[in-house]
Amino acid sequence: MGKNIVVGQSGGPTAVINSSVAGVYAQAKKLGIDKVYGMVHGIEGFLDDKICDLDDYLASPTGVEMLKRTPSAFLGSCRFKMPKIEGHEDVYEKVFEIMEKHDIDYLFYCGGNDSMDTVKMLSDYAAAHGKSQRFVGVPKTVDNDLPITDHCPGYASAAKYIATSMKEIIRDNSSFGVKKPTVVIVEIMGRNAGWLTAAAALSKTADCEGPDAIYLPEKVFDIDKFVDKVKELAKTKSSIVIAVSEGVKLADGRYVCEVGREVAVDAFGHKQMSGTAAKLADTVAAETGLKTRAIEFSTLQRAATHIASLTDINEAFEVGCAAVKAADAGQTAMMITLDRNGDEPYQCGTSAHDIHDIANVERKVPDEWITEDGSNISDAFIKYARPLIMGELTPLYVDGLPAHLVRK
Amino acid sequence: MGKNIVVGQSGGPTAVINSSVAGVYAQAKKLGIDKVYGMVHGIEGFLDDKICDLDDYLASPTGVEMLKRTPSAFLGSCRFKMPKIEGHEDVYEKVFEIMEKHDIDYLFYCGGNDSMDTVKMLSDYAAAHGKSQRFVGVPKTVDNDLPITDHCPGYASAAKYIATSMKEIIRDNSSFGVKKPTVVIVEIMGRNAGWLTAAAALSKTADCEGPDAIYLPEKVFDIDKFVDKVKELAKTKSSIVIAVSEGVKLADGRYVCEVGREVAVDAFGHKQMSGTAAKLADTVAAETGLKTRAIEFSTLQRAATHIASLTDINEAFEVGCAAVKAADAGQTAMMITLDRNGDEPYQCGTSAHDIHDIANVERKVPDEWITEDGSNISDAFIKYARPLIMGELTPLYVDGLPAHLVRK
Repeated sequence: MGKNIVVGQSGGPTAVINSSVAGVYAQAKKLGIDKVYGMVHGIEGFLDDKICDLDDYLASPTGVEMLKRTPSAFLGSCRFKMPKIEGHEDVYEKVFEIMEKHDIDYLFYCGGNDSMDTVKMLSDYAAAHGKSQRFVGVPKTVDNDLPITDHCPGYASAAKYIATSMKEIIRDNSSFGVKKPTVVIVEIMGRNAGWLTAAAALSKTADCEGPDAIYLPEKVFDIDKFVDKVKELAKTKSSIVIAVSEGVKLADGRYVCEVGREVAVDAFGHKQMSGTAAKLADTVAAETGLKTRAIEFSTLQRAATHIASLTDINEAFEVGCAAVKAADAGQTAMMITLDRNGDEPYQCGTSAHDIHDIANVERKVPDEWITEDGSNISDAFIKYARPLIMGELTPLYVDGLPAHLVRK
Repeated sequence: MGKNIVVGQSGGPTAVINSSVAGVYAQAKKLGIDKVYGMVHGIEGFLDDKICDLDDYLASPTGVEMLKRTPSAFLGSCRFKMPKIEGHEDVYEKVFEIMEKHDIDYLFYCGGNDSMDTVKMLSDYAAAHGKSQRFVGVPKTVDNDLPITDHCPGYASAAKYIATSMKEIIRDNSSFGVKKPTVVIVEIMGRNAGWLTAAAALSKTADCEGPDAIYLPEKVFDIDKFVDKVKELAKTKSSIVIAVSEGVKLADGRYVCEVGREVAVDAFGHKQMSGTAAKLADTVAAETGLKTRAIEFSTLQRAATHIASLTDINEAFEVGCAAVKAADAGQTAMMITLDRNGDEPYQCGTSAHDIHDIANVERKVPDEWITEDGSNISDAFIKYARPLIMGELTPLYVDGLPAHLVRK
């Protein structure tokens, strides 16, 4: 008697979220699982019984390799939060009803904090109601802010894109040998955690001096001190490039991007973070007379599969495999973690960890990795992050562009 | 008796401007030229006698290949415009004095419109004063706006970056299956000519529907019609992605980015083009209630050597070679052009053309390549541009990032 399973994707996409789906599929087929279903648009679509059969896309000899090279959520994503169980038992019963309809035994969910909460709620409901289905979370977030796991699949590819682009921006900005420098301020994602912004430091290599300053949301941001820092740098430098998190906040709790303007709020009450670099560039121009330029990596940083890290792709695949193995070994209410076993050479394995320790916990950049004045990060971060961005997977180029796998 | 030559780079950098320097160097060495000097920061640095010997960087077995993989102006660039000859003979005499000091017979200058004007002025001065030195322009501009030549080295790599990133942005934005679409507006370089913005259309491939609309600066822009277009698209689409040139202008001649705010002006009287997408995103959000996102490719589009077009790299190298051959054959006051000889298969050669027909002439996207309502471009453009973005040159990755050659 064959088993069936389902895998879903949730939250903001990453460059490697599809590699985890590929891993789930490959491992399931190895274990003789019958049907591997994909939720179309996550648990929200699943509640409407929207599923697809992954054999339709991945059974071909090129399917898995093309999926690894495809950015964004192949299955479609959602931003649906499961309601609290009490008073909403009907929603939970609906999930189990659809699982039973398709003889689905295990459910895998790729995502970040909110998605791990979905795994927790579903497994809690199953435990309380004597259901035998198993639920395992597959970590995914460019923000790298899940606890317990050494790092999160998706982070390293965004970091590689950021560091590559920073090198290119620094080269571009330093091509003019002018006396008065142009000040480039680059805004990087990460509302509360500075992992992505810190990745700008990886651009400091034998052939690049790296950014002149890096500001993470973990530290209070002071606009006057920032302008002073630029003035100080401008005394000696013919190019200034600075990385700032979109989430930097003043001492009074306001985001920098909120200063002097209204900020839109989305359906979930999250403020739309954008315009931090533009705000700071305007302020620097006004206070110093220097030419400034604001650059936002925006969604490019989470979608640039064309320069994804092979280490990240492989690890995303591995956590997908590990999730299927864990469920098949009888585990439920778990998230797969990446466990670093060595630095030189870098070695990393996987294990399964109780989802209750993970859901809704946010991990930030450790204070000791940020310099005293809050304008840079330490070598300990480089040692942590460098191995994660190693390696590349050559895209398949068609018509001169990286080709992607498309869901019909 | 060996000859010496000098090559300089000028204006905004491109992903392949260094390939042209590599071509000049390689061809010169083949012809037995003795010293190949580089101007450090273009003609401005040359007037201060700032030069380097390219043997120091390119004589090694890996030098030329690394230079091809290095973005921005390896030699340093400048934005110096030669003054008119009358009344400024001293500046011109200075150029010839420095050439004579180093026994330099040929001068090559890589750049766009302003740089070709420099070549014209120097060769005019030489002709009028019986000087024997020769001057040849090497075309380079992401804007693709030089006349006579079929296209300009630097354009295709920017186009490949734009089309690749558009595919990734479109995938990212379409991952949510929501009823109300998010509207992404992508701002692309090109103050007066829409070649780069048109390149967004190259993202339309078997696996991508391409942008929903494309607005070039060649056509008058109407904000109300733009909002109407978005409203129309929003009736049926769950993702909307639109490309706009930074240089789109209203019927009254104002740039869109100037509407409702002051725009900074640089030292050359050029308005700083930035904020067009942000302005349009704010307007659409206010008028439709839809979620919007503005993305600017900014300098990323001209510096992304990591995804440069191999066709572009090779052609940039070839125009460098051709410039040296032309000068060595006795030609001066010329710019090298790329001449398309066939489409299927694509074939392209080079020739030398009188610089007087080229300097200060700006070529725009032909009107017949833009759709009637000004919101898209035709298949004739795709046929023109697709061959140019074909092929890749794998970067040399060190520490997980593309490595570059650095001038000491």
